[in-house]
Amino acid sequence: MHSSRLNKQLSYRSIPLMKHHELLKLSSLLRSTIVDFCSQRGGHLSSNLGVVDLTIALLRVFTPDKDSIIFDVGHQCYAYKMLTLRYDRIHTMRTYNGLSGYQSRSESPFDHYGAGHSSTSISGAMGIATAKHFTHDSSETVAIIGDGALTAGLPFEALNNISSIPGKVIVVVNDNQMSISKTVGSLSAHMQESQDNSSVKSIFTHMGLDYMGSIDGHNMTELHDALLSCKSNPHSCVLHVRTVKGKGFEPSEANPLDYHGIGSFDPNNLPNNLPNNLPSSNSSSAVAPQGGENDDATPVKRSYSSVMAEKLTSMASSSAGKNIVALTAAMPTGTGLDIFQQTHPNRFYDVGIAEQHQVVFAAGLAAKGMRPYVAIYSTFLQRGYDSLVHDIVIQNLPVVFCIDRAGLVGEDGSTHHGLFDIAFMRCLPNMTIMLPRDTQELEMMLEYSLTLNSPCAIRYPRGNGRVYPSMPPSPLVFGEAEVMDECEAASVVLISIGHIFEECHSAYERLLSEGIRIAFVNLRFVKPLNMSKLCEHLRDRKHIVCVEDGSQVGGAGEMLQSLLPKYGISSPMTHLAVPDTLIKHGSVAQLRAQCSLDSDSIYRIIQGVLQNPAIECSPHPLANEPDHSKQG
Amino acid sequence: MHSSRLNKQLSYRSIPLMKHHELLKLSSLLRSTIVDFCSQRGGHLSSNLGVVDLTIALLRVFTPDKDSIIFDVGHQCYAYKMLTLRYDRIHTMRTYNGLSGYQSRSESPFDHYGAGHSSTSISGAMGIATAKHFTHDSSETVAIIGDGALTAGLPFEALNNISSIPGKVIVVVNDNQMSISKTVGSLSAHMQESQDNSSVKSIFTHMGLDYMGSIDGHNMTELHDALLSCKSNPHSCVLHVRTVKGKGFEPSEANPLDYHGIGSFDPNNLPNNLPNNLPSSNSSSAVAPQGGENDDATPVKRSYSSVMAEKLTSMASSSAGKNIVALTAAMPTGTGLDIFQQTHPNRFYDVGIAEQHQVVFAAGLAAKGMRPYVAIYSTFLQRGYDSLVHDIVIQNLPVVFCIDRAGLVGEDGSTHHGLFDIAFMRCLPNMTIMLPRDTQELEMMLEYSLTLNSPCAIRYPRGNGRVYPSMPPSPLVFGEAEVMDECEAASVVLISIGHIFEECHSAYERLLSEGIRIAFVNLRFVKPLNMSKLCEHLRDRKHIVCVEDGSQVGGAGEMLQSLLPKYGISSPMTHLAVPDTLIKHGSVAQLRAQCSLDSDSIYRIIQGVLQNPAIECSPHPLANEPDHSKQG
Repeated sequence: MHSSRLNKQLSYRSIPLMKHHELLKLSSLLRSTIVDFCSQRGGHLSSNLGVVDLTIALLRVFTPDKDSIIFDVGHQCYAYKMLTLRYDRIHTMRTYNGLSGYQSRSESPFDHYGAGHSSTSISGAMGIATAKHFTHDSSETVAIIGDGALTAGLPFEALNNISSIPGKVIVVVNDNQMSISKTVGSLSAHMQESQDNSSVKSIFTHMGLDYMGSIDGHNMTELHDALLSCKSNPHSCVLHVRTVKGKGFEPSEANPLDYHGIGSFDPNNLPNNLPNNLPSSNSSSAVAPQGGENDDATPVKRSYSSVMAEKLTSMASSSAGKNIVALTAAMPTGTGLDIFQQTHPNRFYDVGIAEQHQVVFAAGLAAKGMRPYVAIYSTFLQRGYDSLVHDIVIQNLPVVFCIDRAGLVGEDGSTHHGLFDIAFMRCLPNMTIMLPRDTQELEMMLEYSLTLNSPCAIRYPRGNGRVYPSMPPSPLVFGEAEVMDECEAASVVLISIGHIFEECHSAYERLLSEGIRIAFVNLRFVKPLNMSKLCEHLRDRKHIVCVEDGSQVGGAGEMLQSLLPKYGISSPMTHLAVPDTLIKHGSVAQLRAQCSLDSDSIYRIIQGVLQNPAIECSPHPLANEPDHSKQG
Repeated sequence: MHSSRLNKQLSYRSIPLMKHHELLKLSSLLRSTIVDFCSQRGGHLSSNLGVVDLTIALLRVFTPDKDSIIFDVGHQCYAYKMLTLRYDRIHTMRTYNGLSGYQSRSESPFDHYGAGHSSTSISGAMGIATAKHFTHDSSETVAIIGDGALTAGLPFEALNNISSIPGKVIVVVNDNQMSISKTVGSLSAHMQESQDNSSVKSIFTHMGLDYMGSIDGHNMTELHDALLSCKSNPHSCVLHVRTVKGKGFEPSEANPLDYHGIGSFDPNNLPNNLPNNLPSSNSSSAVAPQGGENDDATPVKRSYSSVMAEKLTSMASSSAGKNIVALTAAMPTGTGLDIFQQTHPNRFYDVGIAEQHQVVFAAGLAAKGMRPYVAIYSTFLQRGYDSLVHDIVIQNLPVVFCIDRAGLVGEDGSTHHGLFDIAFMRCLPNMTIMLPRDTQELEMMLEYSLTLNSPCAIRYPRGNGRVYPSMPPSPLVFGEAEVMDECEAASVVLISIGHIFEECHSAYERLLSEGIRIAFVNLRFVKPLNMSKLCEHLRDRKHIVCVEDGSQVGGAGEMLQSLLPKYGISSPMTHLAVPDTLIKHGSVAQLRAQCSLDSDSIYRIIQGVLQNPAIECSPHPLANEPDHSKQG
């Protein structure tokens, strides 16, 4: 091993042979590589630094090609990836066609189970361990789960069943007192009172697990002994390990929240504000507007999230908004609600990683007259889906969902894209679904949502939004689209659905600059939608192009396409949306280009349509046709 | 109060004035009314008998118009409904236009929070109690939750937050050692060891709740004292109450499972087998085929559930199926899997009311080569939605979802209909979605599912299915519809989607008997779907009628409608499906008629279309148009 940097050939196989001082050197080299990497490319710095020693210790005791080492969430797997034959590709992590930022079964045989969302590792490990029992595979199964992830209900469901499975699981609780923000809830409070280890122990032992701990997660000898003891234990067991998030990099140890998910930075010259501490962010430039040359839009450096939070904060200060309560599930900074919390601390709740409770708690609040705003990422709302249906929609309660990170989110990839929300929400009665075209319209929709007396969703993306000073949003009319350019003479009409407006608008402006005028509509409402009114602007067009940053199957465009014949409109329609396949990671710009959702593609497709408006213009093959490769 | 029956004017207001012997008499009268009612109409007998004394005790101490008394799930609220001014309508319960079988905010101001699914009451109560804090409402909030409901993760998420809310909640744990079947899991095991009360106490006290108990839930004095003490406690607290499910009705005490959800019976002459012990059932005749006179179908008295379970059991006995594992979340009898359990006890898991864990555990099993079959009701799959997306679909694992209780389920009403599954699944990449037309096709699809190497769903309804000896299913071809009657000359083609085939087939036969022949197609696959092939049978028709027992918005019919233009088909299509509004309870036959999904409606609509094939025939107003009444 070189003294100053990692040997590229280094693999997990060398670790069991290393002496103690070599292990310490490895640990230090891994840490500097992680700081180096994250400073250049961004990533989950603090959590990765925190588990370096634990990862090395795991690879001293377990064999990762046989034993299943499963990191809950998976974003703390950088050291693991470097040590399992992926060192040479580590610089590609979270980039287009590069390594995933999470464990992924399709990426490597060392990733036995994939994730991206929190709290699944114990259940997944139990399934794997049970399968090993049936297939007479004696290898070990280890789940490494943070204390934050234990605030979710899923690990409790798993633990409640762990004594009844035939397989053996080792649960390593990585206790750093943080999820992304500080872990909330009583369980964590007890874990943090070290003198109260007995009660934590009692909770786990009641679930049938042998309990060990707590031990220092940065002490190689303690870790080794404890893991060996878990390995020799014939029963499922839990090892409680205390780690320091950001360990070994002073600024990150001091402010782990600032370094959770970050953009690039200069480790030797740290700014007061890091480029971006949004959990989904990598490079903030990746989500900067990609407008064409002739765009009149004025980029403003305000994220949709912070615009939402600031507007909600000011609404809550008004008399009309005196009953507003804001709710997050462990994402106070990600959703921007930390601003709300500062002004209205008594009307703000961070419930931990507990989306079901977040939504049902909101239902209870609304049932007695409060006006809850549930700020939640699209992909995490999936976890509260039954609560949305059963508690909000069926009771027709006025809860507003501020759905953040909708559409393609970029570097976090397939587990984090918010692509299915339109499909899974628009089938629900009583819902109002609004999609703002920009941050100014987001503010209008928020204000409007307070006048509704039924469930409502407002869907917007991660990253910065624009405003269009020369095209300010017209007043909002319930269920009605906004006509940006009526242009009755135009043969083509472009329907923009939600925030993808920035790409549509660029294409529209570029065509205009070339002397080509098309009609241009901003849909605004997916549900309810005044189709008769909308169709006034679609009639007598030769072609309709509709663009949405969401699943093509089941999306708003599909709805429009299915309704058009009922309104006597038979013009062909091209629906640009995310095709029916898994989209991996990359910058938002790259992924939009991949899905023909960037302004260039929209421009080119409209050009093609103008030349031959009668043809169906489908850039994506419909994945709906049977693919026989699926057959086993 | 009459000696032999309840006084109809009796209300909760009299209870605090009653002497002890009057309370006992009331309890006995309520019990006999419940037995009487359930013997005539079916219902949740055992759980309602178990909480009669507790309900009376609650109404001695709390005032139900002010204090919020929330029954978890809500199916144990019969005594509560009788005592809160609904005695005169109790005979209408679970019938069309009658009272709901659950608590429902739209039904009565005494129902402060509605449910139908388990485990929501603590979160909902916390929201209500917090809202009361903000509105300076000093009334109490009580959640009554069974030990079975505590196997879910949601109450854990709620309890983890209960010490951080300003409101006060009283949690009454109704410990009867049963959910619908015997409660599984370590938590329940501990509750059942009475000497181990201390550990149960420690779990609750760790969450910040004062703990009392356990006490006898049939002792009026103990209950009264304990509830008074909870009321005077300024903090959130838990009261652990032991009850006997079926209390006071000997056959039900002895076999509570047989009397969980039942059809009508003669209480004085009990049969060996009760009419129907499916949790969703009321009257088995309600789901009997409603065919027309000229129907050649042979009704067989086998439920889809039991056909699934028997077929899966036999598949698991074959060498091809040696890795099959069957999973249920607290529904071993409801899903029929108790049959599987008898033959393959080691490959059967009941995880408790824990749908998220059920799905993620299945993902782990599949990741190491097992073939998990997740038997789950459509409405409960909503709770495992993120697990389906994140763990199964994104990892493309071969897990088969046997989706039971799909479509309109009848008497359980809006919380239990399985209407959204097609919409929320068909947007997911990698999914195969099959819908059998009858129990014979269900068997074929199960067999076929084992050859797939990717996620798969098979969707079928509650109740009995038919077979059609003269029309046996043709061999299954991946992604292809089954053509029942090609009839090239016919101007109308009827597309039946899934089990609603029984209604479509009756309509088809009735038309045939009148000398009218239409083309008839059984869709079989919602995803993937070979549209080119399907369109061969749709071309040159004057009208397409498509029928599905699921949500109109986002459903398979909408998908077809949106795809037809791409295949050059412009014939008008009538899509019969469940309209975009909440559907309450009633018999399946009544609800199908309400939604124009019964054979009579289908027959009449086709008749209308035959007379004027060019018109759009929409029996339901599209709920998609804005309804301004939603504005507050």
